[in-house]
Amino acid sequence: MPPCFVLLTDFGLADPYVGQLRGVLHQLAPGCGCIDLSHGVPHFRVETGALYLAASVPYLPFHAICLAVVDPGVGSQRAILCLRMGHRTFIAPDNGLLCLAAAQHGNGDARVWRLRPGVVSGNPSATFHARDIMAPAAAKLATGTPPEALGEEMPPAAMHSPVWTRPETTDSGLVARILHVDHFGNCILNIPSAADMPAHEMRHKGRRTPLVTVDHYAALPTGHVGLLCGSQGYWEIAANRDSAATLLDLHTGDSVTFPDVK
Amino acid sequence: MPPCFVLLTDFGLADPYVGQLRGVLHQLAPGCGCIDLSHGVPHFRVETGALYLAASVPYLPFHAICLAVVDPGVGSQRAILCLRMGHRTFIAPDNGLLCLAAAQHGNGDARVWRLRPGVVSGNPSATFHARDIMAPAAAKLATGTPPEALGEEMPPAAMHSPVWTRPETTDSGLVARILHVDHFGNCILNIPSAADMPAHEMRHKGRRTPLVTVDHYAALPTGHVGLLCGSQGYWEIAANRDSAATLLDLHTGDSVTFPDVK
Amino acid sequence: MPPCFVLLTDFGLADPYVGQLRGVLHQLAPGCGCIDLSHGVPHFRVETGALYLAASVPYLPFHAICLAVVDPGVGSQRAILCLRMGHRTFIAPDNGLLCLAAAQHGNGDARVWRLRPGVVSGNPSATFHARDIMAPAAAKLATGTPPEALGEEMPPAAMHSPVWTRPETTDSGLVARILHVDHFGNCILNIPSAADMPAHEMRHKGRRTPLVTVDHYAALPTGHVGLLCGSQGYWEIAANRDSAATLLDLHTGDSVTFPDVK
Repeated sequence: MPPCFVLLTDFGLADPYVGQLRGVLHQLAPGCGCIDLSHGVPHFRVETGALYLAASVPYLPFHAICLAVVDPGVGSQRAILCLRMGHRTFIAPDNGLLCLAAAQHGNGDARVWRLRPGVVSGNPSATFHARDIMAPAAAKLATGTPPEALGEEMPPAAMHSPVWTRPETTDSGLVARILHVDHFGNCILNIPSAADMPAHEMRHKGRRTPLVTVDHYAALPTGHVGLLCGSQGYWEIAANRDSAATLLDLHTGDSVTFPDVK
Repeated sequence: MPPCFVLLTDFGLADPYVGQLRGVLHQLAPGCGCIDLSHGVPHFRVETGALYLAASVPYLPFHAICLAVVDPGVGSQRAILCLRMGHRTFIAPDNGLLCLAAAQHGNGDARVWRLRPGVVSGNPSATFHARDIMAPAAAKLATGTPPEALGEEMPPAAMHSPVWTRPETTDSGLVARILHVDHFGNCILNIPSAADMPAHEMRHKGRRTPLVTVDHYAALPTGHVGLLCGSQGYWEIAANRDSAATLLDLHTGDSVTFPDVK
Repeated sequence: MPPCFVLLTDFGLADPYVGQLRGVLHQLAPGCGCIDLSHGVPHFRVETGALYLAASVPYLPFHAICLAVVDPGVGSQRAILCLRMGHRTFIAPDNGLLCLAAAQHGNGDARVWRLRPGVVSGNPSATFHARDIMAPAAAKLATGTPPEALGEEMPPAAMHSPVWTRPETTDSGLVARILHVDHFGNCILNIPSAADMPAHEMRHKGRRTPLVTVDHYAALPTGHVGLLCGSQGYWEIAANRDSAATLLDLHTGDSVTFPDVK
C-alpha cells in the first residue's frame, strides 16, 4: 500500500485552506490516500490538537504520514519537526503538538528531525507554511525521501514540552488540565487511562462536585457527573445524555483538582 | 470495483471521532473508498439521520457499505443491525435509524441481521461502538465476510420503528412531523414525494398559514412559504431565498397539521 | 492519472447534500478521486465562492474537474457553464462564480461552453441541479466526453461579471470590496497581490484606521491592523493573533477606501 496522508489542523472547513492542502498533496503524491483526522481543533489550541493526535495514533493507517498544524507561531522562527514512531510519521511545528503522542505511543523508539529552512524549493508564502512547506515535505516523505534528507536529527526530549503535558501532584491533590471539551460536552483530562483514579470528588473554581466512576455514559445516573475511562485513552468528566461542561461550567484549559488522588 | 464505505453520524467534524473511524476502516480494508454522507446529524436526532439515509439511498455508490451512527443508547443493550438492500449494506443501531430507508427503498427484498455480541475480537471500548465494533464489522463485510457470519437473521418488520416514521391521519387532517430543517431553512416532512398533498393551509402552534404548492424554490413569491416536492424524496415546507423555519418558527420534531388532507 | 473531482459549494456539511454529490460522482466515475475545496462558502455569497476558486487554482490537482455551486438562481433560467483553463475544467452556474479564476489564471487560453438544457438524461429535480445536472455532466467530462459535446462555446468575456470582480479607482482613492472574512478574521480584498498597495490608511464607515504593511501576521504589532499579501493571492487586512474583522467591524461585502492609492 502507498502511504496515506492524515490531516489535523485548526483551519476549520469553511475556508479553502484545507482544500488547498489536499490539492497540493494530490499534485505531489497523487497515488496516496488522504484522511481528515479533524480540522476542528479550536483556533490556536495546541493542547487540544496534541490530545487529538495522541488519542488517534492507534487508529491511524499503518503507514500514515500525518500533517498536524496548530501553529500560532507561523512566520516566526519556531522549528518544524518530523517525528517517526514505527511506520507512522508526523510533521508539525515544534510547539508541543507532538508531545502527548510521543509520550503515549513512543515506546522508546521515537525519532525526531528538525526540518532545515529551505527544505522545499520555490518561494513559500510567509503565512501558510502548512501548504507551502509542510505539505511538500510530507509529499517528499510519501514518495521515498528519508527524513534524514530533510533535516537534522535531534533527541525527542529536546522537543518543546509545555506544562499541560501531564497532571501535577500537589498537597491539595492531583491537579489536572482539561485538554478538550468534545461535541457531547465530555471533558477530556491530561490523565492517561492507564493511571489509577480513585477520585470521589472534584474541585473547580471553589466548587466541590461528587463524582461516580463508571464504565460507560449510560451507566451514569441522569443529572450526575462522573469519571470514566473514555475511548480516547484519557480520563474524562462526563454526564449521561447531557453536557458535563455545561453542568459544571468547565472549559478547555481549566484546571481541576482531585483531592483524593495524591 | 471494491465496495465503498459511506459514513453517517452525529459526531460533528470538530472532534477526532470521525477521523478515527476513517483510520480504522483504512487499517482493516485499505483498498476501499470512503465517502462522508454527513456528520452533521443533530446530536441524538435519530429521525434526522433516518431521513438523511432514506433521501440518499439512490445516490450512494452501488456497492456501498454504510455505517450509520446516531446512537443515544451506546453502552446499553440495544442491538446493532445489518440491513442489506440490493448490493448496498447498512450497519446501524436498532433505534429506527434504518426504518425510513427500508420503507422507501426496500422493495420487499430487504434482509436484516442482528449482530451478535462479540462479533469483533479484541476489547471494544464501552463508549465508542462505532469505532470499536461497527467499523470492524463493516470492514469484515467489505473484505468478503457474509452478513450471516456476523449475526442472526431477523424479519425486517421486527426492527424498532418509532412513531415519526409516517404521518398520521386524524379528524383534524394529516398530522406530519418535521424530520429535518436544512441549511437553507427548508423543513422536510415525513411525507414521501409519492403521496398526494392537496394542501392549501398548514396549522402549527395555533397559527394558520396559507400555502402555495410549487415546483422549485424560485417559483415561490418572496415572503411566502409553500410546499414542494424537494430533491430529498419527501415534501418540504420552503421559502424563496429565505428560511421557512425562521419565518414560521418551525423546528425539527415539530408536528404540523394539514386540514385539507384527509 | 484519472482526473480528480474538486467540490466547492455553499451547502455546508450538516445536510446530506454534499454526500449525495459525492455518491453520484462515485456511481458515474468510480475511478476518480474527489477533493473538497470547501462547502463553507457563506450561503449564496457568490463573491466568496469566486475568491475561493481563484485563490485555489494553482493548488488544484493538475487534471481537476471542479464542480462549483453557489447558485441562488437554481430553478430559474441562468445558464450552467463549463470553463477550461489548461488541463483543469470548471462547471458552475453563470453568475460570476468563475470570473475571478478566469481573470487571475486564464492567461488568454480560457475557453467556455454553455451547457445545453437536457445535457443529462433522466428527470432532474428542479431544486438540486448540482446533483442532478452538474455532477452527471462533470462525470461525463471525467470519463472522456469533450466539453463541445455538452453545449455551445461562447467567448469568456460573455460570462456574467458582477461589480465586485475588481476594485474601483475614484477621486477619494481606491475603493475595494471585502470578498471574504476568513476563520481567523482576516479580510480578503478584491485586489490581486500583483497590484501595488502603498496604503497607510483605510476608511470604512466614516472611520480612519492607520495601516502598516507587513510580510506575515506575526510581524504585526499586537493590537494593530495591517495590510499584507496573504497566501490567497489577494491583499488582506489582518491582525496578529486577533481578528481584524472584529477589531474594525468589517464584513464580507463591505467596501473600504484607501485614500493613498490613486
